[in-house]
Amino acid sequence: MTALPNIPLVQRGDDLAAIILRGARDAQIELQDGDVLVLAQKIVSKAEGRAVRLRDVSPSPRAIELAREAQKDARFCQVVLWDTREILRVRPGLIVVETVHGWVCANAGIDRSNVAPHSGDDEEWVLRLPADADASAHNLRERLRAATSREIGIIVNDTHGRAWRNGAVGVAIGVAGLPAVEDLRGQPDLFGDELQVTTVGLADQIASAASLLQGQADEGRPIIHARGVPMMRRDGSAREIVRAKAMDLFR
Amino acid sequence: MTALPNIPLVQRGDDLAAIILRGARDAQIELQDGDVLVLAQKIVSKAEGRAVRLRDVSPSPRAIELAREAQKDARFCQVVLWDTREILRVRPGLIVVETVHGWVCANAGIDRSNVAPHSGDDEEWVLRLPADADASAHNLRERLRAATSREIGIIVNDTHGRAWRNGAVGVAIGVAGLPAVEDLRGQPDLFGDELQVTTVGLADQIASAASLLQGQADEGRPIIHARGVPMMRRDGSAREIVRAKAMDLFR
Repeated sequence: MTALPNIPLVQRGDDLAAIILRGARDAQIELQDGDVLVLAQKIVSKAEGRAVRLRDVSPSPRAIELAREAQKDARFCQVVLWDTREILRVRPGLIVVETVHGWVCANAGIDRSNVAPHSGDDEEWVLRLPADADASAHNLRERLRAATSREIGIIVNDTHGRAWRNGAVGVAIGVAGLPAVEDLRGQPDLFGDELQVTTVGLADQIASAASLLQGQADEGRPIIHARGVPMMRRDGSAREIVRAKAMDLFR
Repeated sequence: MTALPNIPLVQRGDDLAAIILRGARDAQIELQDGDVLVLAQKIVSKAEGRAVRLRDVSPSPRAIELAREAQKDARFCQVVLWDTREILRVRPGLIVVETVHGWVCANAGIDRSNVAPHSGDDEEWVLRLPADADASAHNLRERLRAATSREIGIIVNDTHGRAWRNGAVGVAIGVAGLPAVEDLRGQPDLFGDELQVTTVGLADQIASAASLLQGQADEGRPIIHARGVPMMRRDGSAREIVRAKAMDLFR
């Protein structure tokens, strides 16, 4: 895994495929079939214009009530509600929801840190998740295929807290060109017995590995190149990862 | 990350430090300060004699009742109960518990696959988690320090299912010589704002990355060497990862 160097601060409308190709060139990486590129959600959201200026947000009565319960900014809570299918838990300082995309996470994935201010703009901005991160990944994969003739896997990753375990970890919220979940049923283990673990969160594991290199603070390494990940060759999408509410025993 | 080659099938009493040193030599890796070695829980459990022959287990009435509910072998359920602090969910085919170690996982981490039969033994065996995987990691770290004078981080990893997301992923259940959870509070982001994500599951992310190389089936690559993971230098333990029940909104 290699963090691509010299990635600029991404602005709305920036061409991420071009940024990737320049970064790979600077790292002297020639993209190959089966390579995976992991992009931090923030740069995808920024390129897609998903930043929202809080001053422009008028909180609804429901957002104001949520803000009171969660002890957060009502305009921030309004943006959270835009991207929320169902509120699961609210405590002071904490809002956990199921997003419109199906993810269970804090604040509907809305981020207040590392949101690039426009030049000369000291307003408060927040950043929503991509509207359809699978589509973002798919489009990027198509752009890279057109430019390189290579079959590249793309993961858009975010950092989520978890039930039961402390510490947030990288997870995949958009996937193209690789399986998001691998199904191992039918594969024998070392002794020919049935496997205990039958489905593996491949894209989430790659997302976590990439997150190690990306960092959370001021590192500025949002694009990770991975080569040699053992995986089945098939297309996939992050929809595979979303566990249907009816199948989920813990919400 | 490199999977150490030529790792033998581990038996009770085997010297994992010696196996690691041979594997590193065969991979032409000279261990350095800050390297991390990730060991699959199965080989640690096997070396520590945590295999149980099902024929030797007499299920209690409670185990028989659990077996009926979960539609599993009553002797297997008895072994699960040995390592269970609290049963959280039972459905046909599924038992989710809080283990005596504090982990929320299926079957108390008891594994039926890849359990080495003794020679000429076609009995059914199951494998319990190490009694104290932090101690296992710590002891291994001490052994490697004695042999190499290097400060090596050790992670014992397992593969757990998760709430909300399909696909099991590698997680850390034993840690020594590195932080299990990194606290980023007080670190500025790219624009000097407060960070959204404040604690990072470092050891879990390394465990997931290693799991990509270990595989679940017949790969036989249980020991992964990692170099260059960006991290704070401090000792830690997997206890940092266990979220206290009172702090957990999802069980």
